[in-house]
Amino acid sequence: MTIRSVAIIGLGLLGGSIGLAIREKLSEVTTTGFDADADVRGRATANGLVGAVCDTAAQAVASADLVILCVPVGAMGDAARGLAGCLKEGAIVSDVGSSKRSVVSALEEALPDAIVIPAHPVAGTERSGPDAGFATLFEGRWCILTPPKNADTDAVSALTLFWQELGATVELMDPDHHDLVLAVTSHIPHLIAYTIVGTASDLEDVTRGEVIKYSAGGFRDFTRIAASDPVMWRDVFLNNRDAVLEMLGRFTEDLTAMQRAIRDGDGDRLLEIFSRTRAIRQAILEQGQDVAKPDFGRGSKEV
Amino acid sequence: MTIRSVAIIGLGLLGGSIGLAIREKLSEVTTTGFDADADVRGRATANGLVGAVCDTAAQAVASADLVILCVPVGAMGDAARGLAGCLKEGAIVSDVGSSKRSVVSALEEALPDAIVIPAHPVAGTERSGPDAGFATLFEGRWCILTPPKNADTDAVSALTLFWQELGATVELMDPDHHDLVLAVTSHIPHLIAYTIVGTASDLEDVTRGEVIKYSAGGFRDFTRIAASDPVMWRDVFLNNRDAVLEMLGRFTEDLTAMQRAIRDGDGDRLLEIFSRTRAIRQAILEQGQDVAKPDFGRGSKEV
Ligand SMILES: NC(=O)c1ccc[n+]([C@@H]2O[C@H](COP(=O)([O-])OP(=O)(O)OC[C@H]3O[C@@H](n4cnc5c(N)ncnc54)[C@H](OP(=O)(O)O)[C@@H]3O)[C@@H](O)[C@H]2O)c1
Ligand SMILES: NC(=O)c1ccc[n+]([C@@H]2O[C@H](COP(=O)([O-])OP(=O)(O)OC[C@H]3O[C@@H](n4cnc5c(N)ncnc54)[C@H](OP(=O)(O)O)[C@@H]3O)[C@@H](O)[C@H]2O)c1
Repeated sequence: MTIRSVAIIGLGLLGGSIGLAIREKLSEVTTTGFDADADVRGRATANGLVGAVCDTAAQAVASADLVILCVPVGAMGDAARGLAGCLKEGAIVSDVGSSKRSVVSALEEALPDAIVIPAHPVAGTERSGPDAGFATLFEGRWCILTPPKNADTDAVSALTLFWQELGATVELMDPDHHDLVLAVTSHIPHLIAYTIVGTASDLEDVTRGEVIKYSAGGFRDFTRIAASDPVMWRDVFLNNRDAVLEMLGRFTEDLTAMQRAIRDGDGDRLLEIFSRTRAIRQAILEQGQDVAKPDFGRGSKEV
Repeated sequence: MTIRSVAIIGLGLLGGSIGLAIREKLSEVTTTGFDADADVRGRATANGLVGAVCDTAAQAVASADLVILCVPVGAMGDAARGLAGCLKEGAIVSDVGSSKRSVVSALEEALPDAIVIPAHPVAGTERSGPDAGFATLFEGRWCILTPPKNADTDAVSALTLFWQELGATVELMDPDHHDLVLAVTSHIPHLIAYTIVGTASDLEDVTRGEVIKYSAGGFRDFTRIAASDPVMWRDVFLNNRDAVLEMLGRFTEDLTAMQRAIRDGDGDRLLEIFSRTRAIRQAILEQGQDVAKPDFGRGSKEV
């Protein structure tokens, strides 16, 4: 099957970036879009995120070969229910949600007769909304598909090709395993960042002004992550509770061991722990998932 | 007093950056340098980090108006003892150590008759060694001086001017307060980053390959911080133990509250916590301590 038209439901960072990427890389594909928020629809029109911004979800999906839900994971069920009876025959329904088990269930329950192939492009920034998107967001990133066991293989192939054309590399995964992997590589890092930024803003002995001034020592990197959209992240933690709690338990154990090594003045142990972590960094650089510019060219002129 | 010559002891990231910054911004000032490691001395010569790389610390400091110790905080005492009896009359001895209380004691004990004005430029990257430095490292950053109560005011003024000329803004602070502030803005973020990267590399259910592949979801930012020099950070944690343990206690309390909110499915509480942290990010951007480029221009073409 060939995807000739794509409907995007939710025109924020992810939805907008998909729209812009299609315009740039798949110019023969037409796009429509809908967002529950009228202001967002206005911005999406102004920014040309999709070819036509529609006033209802039903209109947006009416002739789409592929429908992508780009709303917070907690809103997937609602958004999908709004499409029941409106989809074109044979249309693929997909999404970009950051957790997958609960989204798979919500979509399958809301649209029992549709071809549902959930997906998660592992690409983002801390910004959200209809002005945050850009066409290159998915380049060199991974997109994980979690098709059901009996999935239509043509549909999986078509969706795989679609994401490849936006610049991503596609991997298939079981939704439960996805949720465990992303708990480690994304959800726990966000949870920790939100926590430390919260801790730092509530101290009596150190003022907020001091925290802000001296943030270049490492803290500012956490504030970037902790500036991510609160609704999106609330939904991720509510929807991936078990995997997040499991990984948090392991992290806490390791943190306690670290605390003990510091209290005991055990320099050898600290050195051993701090030395092990460089290998992972090296591999991330080699695989192109980050760059080694000092300071990311932030404050300095050297890049 | 006027600083006409600077001796740099320890020619790694900090020492090298100071040397390069002086050459670029204070071309009339001469520089000498020494490093305990002969290979580092060779690289420093090749990179032109200072005007003359000397074979002994005594030679390097013999005619210096300002001596800056740029070695790990645990090596400050040793490095300072090596200078006893070698300093020029009236020379200022300073440093760049990331913790200050223990460094102040070590320097004053090793050099009881010298003019000691400890300092900490809050600027760095995760790289270390004689090839990592660059002249703009200190531009737009803060440099904290922790002069003793009876400090020579001329010396404090001269050192203040020196750091300003390298591009930094100078602030005076009590060493204990410095150690508490930096525990929050730098030491705890590094400790947490080392811990989560360690946790992620030791899982059975999620492979290292998966952690590396899907690191763009947030994890990669922690790996950058956790790639910092192990010796430097071991020394920081051994030398700022009390403040680090105090701040770690608060962080752990907040993390436990977060864990409970997730376990209870308390979305309102999560939303409230996640919403509070954006204000700090905004202030950091406004004060120029970070930039808001999406992805820092890492993977994407848009900057
Ligand atoms: N941000 C990232 O880094 C990232 C990365 C990978 C995946 N994701 C996933 O991508 C999805 C979207 O995230 P985002 O960052 O693009 O969020 P966003 O910028 O906030 O955009 C989401 C948009 O969806 C709208 N919306 C909410 N419920 C809706 C509904 N029932 N029907 C139509 N529109 C609705 C929202 O409107 P209102 O503002 O009025 O609610 C908002 O405009 C989430 O599932 C998230 O987990 C995000
Ligand atoms: N990196 C940062 O982001 C940052 C930021 C602000 C402040 N600081 C502080 O700056 C200082 C230096 O850090 P850095 O990142 O520049 O480290 P670095 O790149 O590892 O450089 C330190 C150099 O000092 C040498 N050294 C060790 N003991 C010595 C001694 N007794 N005499 C002479 N040389 C000696 C080391 O040689 P060997 O390799 O043989 O040990 C090494 O070449 C530390 O106190 C750190 O806390 C660092």
